[in-house]
Amino acid sequence: MTQKALILFAHGARAAGWAAPFERLQQITSAQLPEVAVRLAFLELMTPQLPGTVAALAADGRTDITIVPVFLGQGSHLLRDLPLIVEELRIAHPNLLIRVAAAAGEDPDVLGAIARYCIVSMN
Amino acid sequence: MTQKALILFAHGARAAGWAAPFERLQQITSAQLPEVAVRLAFLELMTPQLPGTVAALAADGRTDITIVPVFLGQGSHLLRDLPLIVEELRIAHPNLLIRVAAAAGEDPDVLGAIARYCIVSMN
Repeated sequence: MTQKALILFAHGARAAGWAAPFERLQQITSAQLPEVAVRLAFLELMTPQLPGTVAALAADGRTDITIVPVFLGQGSHLLRDLPLIVEELRIAHPNLLIRVAAAAGEDPDVLGAIARYCIVSMN
Repeated sequence: MTQKALILFAHGARAAGWAAPFERLQQITSAQLPEVAVRLAFLELMTPQLPGTVAALAADGRTDITIVPVFLGQGSHLLRDLPLIVEELRIAHPNLLIRVAAAAGEDPDVLGAIARYCIVSMN
């Protein structure tokens, strides 16, 4: 068994329905990565949050964790809040490899898909 | 000349760099829609905001305006704030056709691109 985990890290919101696209994203990625534990975690307003999710993955024997910020822009949440959380997680779990990807909105293919959606929405 | 305009509507943030992917999105869509006025507008923390942008487009002779919320989840900003703003805009500009698309995160192709990005980030 691989010891890999993928955490889709999203902002969170008060409206429960806000999480729907992130839950679909979890389903899509989980189906394509059957040996990887794919989890959704939020920064605020929703649970589970990142520390509890990482602790649960560690307890489950996952040692190689990739956090992908499912954010479009990189603001203070990704520039300041997330690095602090990850620093604390690395201290709390020294045996884990915790990697943090760039924000999804930095990916040219993601932006290309959003651009196509905008153009189709004009018609 | 077409009288169409496309407004990419984003949340806004304190960090100026947060807007970078949205500015790239504006460049991509603008290049592909040379006759359409493509504008970026924010809900809060950044300018320009939606009312000023719509007023400027109306003054410029644009009568058919599509607003695409470049948001992943649909929370209170899209369920409550945006409809109120659009209602006021329709009252203020009765001669404009103002259409509002679904959030970009509701589009399956956008989610598919984000999923591919997440999977690639694992390697």
